[in-house]
Amino acid sequence: MPSNQNEFRDGLSGEERLIARYFRPLATAPGAFGLGDDAAALTPPAGCDLVLTTDGVIAGVHFLPTDPPQSIARKALRMNLSDLAAKGAAPIGFLLSIALPTSTQEPWIAAFVEGLGQDIGRYGCPLLGGDTDRTPGPLSISITAFGTVPHGAMVRRATAKPGDIIAVTGSIGDAALGVLIHRDADLAKRWRLSSAASEYLQQRYLLPQPRNALAEALRAHASAAMDVSDGLAGDLAKLCRASELAAVVDVAAVPLSDAARTALSADAKLIERILTGGDDYEIVLTLPEAKFGSLSAAARTAGVPLAKIGQVTSGQGVRFLREGKTLSFAQPSYSHF
Amino acid sequence: MPSNQNEFRDGLSGEERLIARYFRPLATAPGAFGLGDDAAALTPPAGCDLVLTTDGVIAGVHFLPTDPPQSIARKALRMNLSDLAAKGAAPIGFLLSIALPTSTQEPWIAAFVEGLGQDIGRYGCPLLGGDTDRTPGPLSISITAFGTVPHGAMVRRATAKPGDIIAVTGSIGDAALGVLIHRDADLAKRWRLSSAASEYLQQRYLLPQPRNALAEALRAHASAAMDVSDGLAGDLAKLCRASELAAVVDVAAVPLSDAARTALSADAKLIERILTGGDDYEIVLTLPEAKFGSLSAAARTAGVPLAKIGQVTSGQGVRFLREGKTLSFAQPSYSHF
Repeated sequence: MPSNQNEFRDGLSGEERLIARYFRPLATAPGAFGLGDDAAALTPPAGCDLVLTTDGVIAGVHFLPTDPPQSIARKALRMNLSDLAAKGAAPIGFLLSIALPTSTQEPWIAAFVEGLGQDIGRYGCPLLGGDTDRTPGPLSISITAFGTVPHGAMVRRATAKPGDIIAVTGSIGDAALGVLIHRDADLAKRWRLSSAASEYLQQRYLLPQPRNALAEALRAHASAAMDVSDGLAGDLAKLCRASELAAVVDVAAVPLSDAARTALSADAKLIERILTGGDDYEIVLTLPEAKFGSLSAAARTAGVPLAKIGQVTSGQGVRFLREGKTLSFAQPSYSHF
Repeated sequence: MPSNQNEFRDGLSGEERLIARYFRPLATAPGAFGLGDDAAALTPPAGCDLVLTTDGVIAGVHFLPTDPPQSIARKALRMNLSDLAAKGAAPIGFLLSIALPTSTQEPWIAAFVEGLGQDIGRYGCPLLGGDTDRTPGPLSISITAFGTVPHGAMVRRATAKPGDIIAVTGSIGDAALGVLIHRDADLAKRWRLSSAASEYLQQRYLLPQPRNALAEALRAHASAAMDVSDGLAGDLAKLCRASELAAVVDVAAVPLSDAARTALSADAKLIERILTGGDDYEIVLTLPEAKFGSLSAAARTAGVPLAKIGQVTSGQGVRFLREGKTLSFAQPSYSHF
């Protein structure tokens, strides 16, 4: 969209003014050059590989346009931080591309930047650069995040071993239930949730808790890992396909929050939603059984719940066993296509 | 958009199938892991800094939805390659985020990937990873590209010196005229352009020629540089503001293609469009006059035209002088805001 002439009264375009006012204060790393250059420079620590990940969100697809701008910003960054965590990488910075509808008002941008700034500080992951555009379509945000691992040490998907056990962090299914309540508040009643439980599930949808505190311990223990973003069932299936192996999961061992358990006892069919709904931003990992005690201790120190849920076997396919029977899912994984 | 069950008949979601069929063949770097992991790994060459840039395009804003998919892909990549070139960086790879409207058909994707593959080979810049989404809005593409420079050697915007001369690669204004013809074919007649000249200008819009061949020589000669993407006038003003300096440009010395000269002689007012219209993807740079001969020789070897167009001075503001008078522009630079 061409600017009008007024926007040039001090020689700055509207785009430059927006960047200077809102985004430049977030760009404190020396290599960001205060967002005043074509590119950023990053000096990788000696002996390290960079881990690169990119993940985006679009209004109406990944979030509701009415969601708080702070949580939209924080979730977009945390989705990428979760990928770094699952790969055993320490975050070192990110690039932000944002396409704003012409209707976006400055208070929205100010709130978005406030949320982003909170998590930049919390996770030590500075803004290095970016790109701002106007769009005739929905608001969309694309983040590329960078992390470091010692050379060759990125935790892969494809390296699980037969006989490994399968573990998962945190609790599964909260966000998948939370987004339903967020869209239809009546569900909280139907599921007999207290207002605290309803709020908890919605917060789990709005604000993931990426497990970056566990990254270093993952590198030392896990044979393979990935972050759970498209549902435990589908993501574990991806890990197993990449590793050319199969898995069996004990559904009773999958960690559920009290709120999710309450909802599940009101509607037993929710088990499919819990296991396949996505947006968990937990980590599913495999490791030799002998290492589980040591990883559990590290997870306790890091304040990250960790549960053993199954085992890797030869063959293919992932079975979710409940009371001796294999669950079947109408739709095993979230997919945009 | 949730998948339907059929898309899982071999355990792959529609998204995974799309990636496997079209994008995985482009991801040949070992650290891309065949697009089969959460993240890519990059081992930076010892003693180098990474240069990071991100730039995106949206249908209806940066390109016409009816433009050939091959050239949309190539332009999106080349916009980023142009930033790397201006910073003196050698490309080493890129991440692609693409949001596809539900109406996008597979032949469009196949053609897009074909174009991308051509330039991946041509510029030695492999696909390292990415993100695919469906969008209810216009097609949008965001690319993050990575390059390397020796430690500390990224060519900056903010480092021009008073007394430096200003030079620019290639020719200016072609794409800004080309896009007008692309939208309204009658203009070619009004500007008395041959069909070859009209085609040339449109190609300059559809397919920029980033000056990566000049990157190494830039590092050795330029005091400051940036790529010209929002118009020569506005981008040179940015460089001067960053350097806290002023500049004078001799409009007669600004290099124009024969086609642009023809259009300009038919309509003298086009000079503003030429100097401010954007999409050039040339490089504007500053350097001590004593180094110009050596850089010119390197540019000839690289096959990149190079012209001296002005001088950096103390003070602030950029003046474009024509026959002793300063041109004034209604809108000095392209801006999305």
